[in-house]
Amino acid sequence: MRFARISKDGDVSFAVVEGDEVTMITGSPFGEWEKSGTATTPLDEAGLVAPCSPGKILAMAENFGSHLHGAVEHTEPQPFWKAPNSIVGPGESILLPSHAGQVDAEGELVAVIGSRCSKVAPEHALGYVLGYTCGNDVSARYWQKNDRQWWRGKSSDTFGPIGPTIVSDVDPSDLEVVTRINGKEVQRCSVSEMIFDFAALISFVSQSVTLEPGDLIFSGTSGSPATLHDGDTVEVEATGIGVLSNPVAAG
Amino acid sequence: MRFARISKDGDVSFAVVEGDEVTMITGSPFGEWEKSGTATTPLDEAGLVAPCSPGKILAMAENFGSHLHGAVEHTEPQPFWKAPNSIVGPGESILLPSHAGQVDAEGELVAVIGSRCSKVAPEHALGYVLGYTCGNDVSARYWQKNDRQWWRGKSSDTFGPIGPTIVSDVDPSDLEVVTRINGKEVQRCSVSEMIFDFAALISFVSQSVTLEPGDLIFSGTSGSPATLHDGDTVEVEATGIGVLSNPVAAG
Repeated sequence: MRFARISKDGDVSFAVVEGDEVTMITGSPFGEWEKSGTATTPLDEAGLVAPCSPGKILAMAENFGSHLHGAVEHTEPQPFWKAPNSIVGPGESILLPSHAGQVDAEGELVAVIGSRCSKVAPEHALGYVLGYTCGNDVSARYWQKNDRQWWRGKSSDTFGPIGPTIVSDVDPSDLEVVTRINGKEVQRCSVSEMIFDFAALISFVSQSVTLEPGDLIFSGTSGSPATLHDGDTVEVEATGIGVLSNPVAAG
Repeated sequence: MRFARISKDGDVSFAVVEGDEVTMITGSPFGEWEKSGTATTPLDEAGLVAPCSPGKILAMAENFGSHLHGAVEHTEPQPFWKAPNSIVGPGESILLPSHAGQVDAEGELVAVIGSRCSKVAPEHALGYVLGYTCGNDVSARYWQKNDRQWWRGKSSDTFGPIGPTIVSDVDPSDLEVVTRINGKEVQRCSVSEMIFDFAALISFVSQSVTLEPGDLIFSGTSGSPATLHDGDTVEVEATGIGVLSNPVAAG
């Protein structure tokens, strides 16, 4: 199943996407839901917003060998917090803070937690996932390097685009994630290259942090991320999920 | 005014505290509110829970000279994220993770944001504050030192006690904060010693991160924090606000 959120007349509601048609639902994909009726809207006219509103977001540092640049692999996952103010949806602008310097895109796959979980074993962890979406772990490098912690380097307003939809029936061990800036490919990986896979990440995080429906786990990024400039368009595409596209603007 | 939240029959509602009596309110201190009636409950029987439910929590590293231990003062505030799963209220247990090693208490004053603010000037920043409460920035030192970022070192479940109430009419530049473990004083400071005061912190944070009603800004801690053990009771008291008391238990 493919879930989206739609903004219509100021109200935000969940919907399901079948083919290129969107049908509103009552309830929520995190609980009981049913289609509101038979009326559908074409996907490209539906007004998608971020597919959920996470309370917590944990992203991963250095979780792809291709992103280590010679550093030694960590023996445990290395999460960090992103904050809810970073979330924007498809088509919303990534704003480059005027005082930030270099800001890079990091294309990633994102697991969306479906139900509360605490201290779960790896072999049960994926049972707590609703589905997967694309994410962009936008990163201000000067702040990331020079601040005591990565609070604004990873969580300035608009630094967490997600979307376009949450897809429940993909295999999170075997998807390709491609990042493009102005149509030019700048990152490509298979999530099979993750040093710690989503089952390991969710299990590890949940030993310390209780996860709730809508919380997000970003996979970590691969290779050498590319820098964003005012006027760019950045896309993150994952197999079977779709394309998350965001314009970039001076903040 | 002094605001609290009360749990009664599974419902959580806001209340006001006058003297030692609690009166329920309709609405919220973050918007319009009025007393639900004239019935009052004695404060010590009211069942206080955490006085708000923050979406975002930023705490400060190294914001008191007495906590620097010889390190040089930073030229900018040094925030880090705590996460909502860390929040507990008065009387709720701080759980020591079995695999964490040394866990310390850090008694602090906490500003509670009252209305949305972005890119505010220091001279206007305190106008966005609803009031102040006590907080304990519980810290697992091994994780803080050895993890790439302070995600679980500062945000494991129960690592963010706040309360007992939010007080709107105190002077945030001139309060004493005292921390006790099993009745013995282990920290004492005046918030006048903050290297960056709340006006400076809120202005600085809001340049990158839009703050919302209920978000929290922890002051940073002073001196040399003390270590918690199973069976302890830890108290954080701020002048005019009250005592936040939490038992400590093995997790």
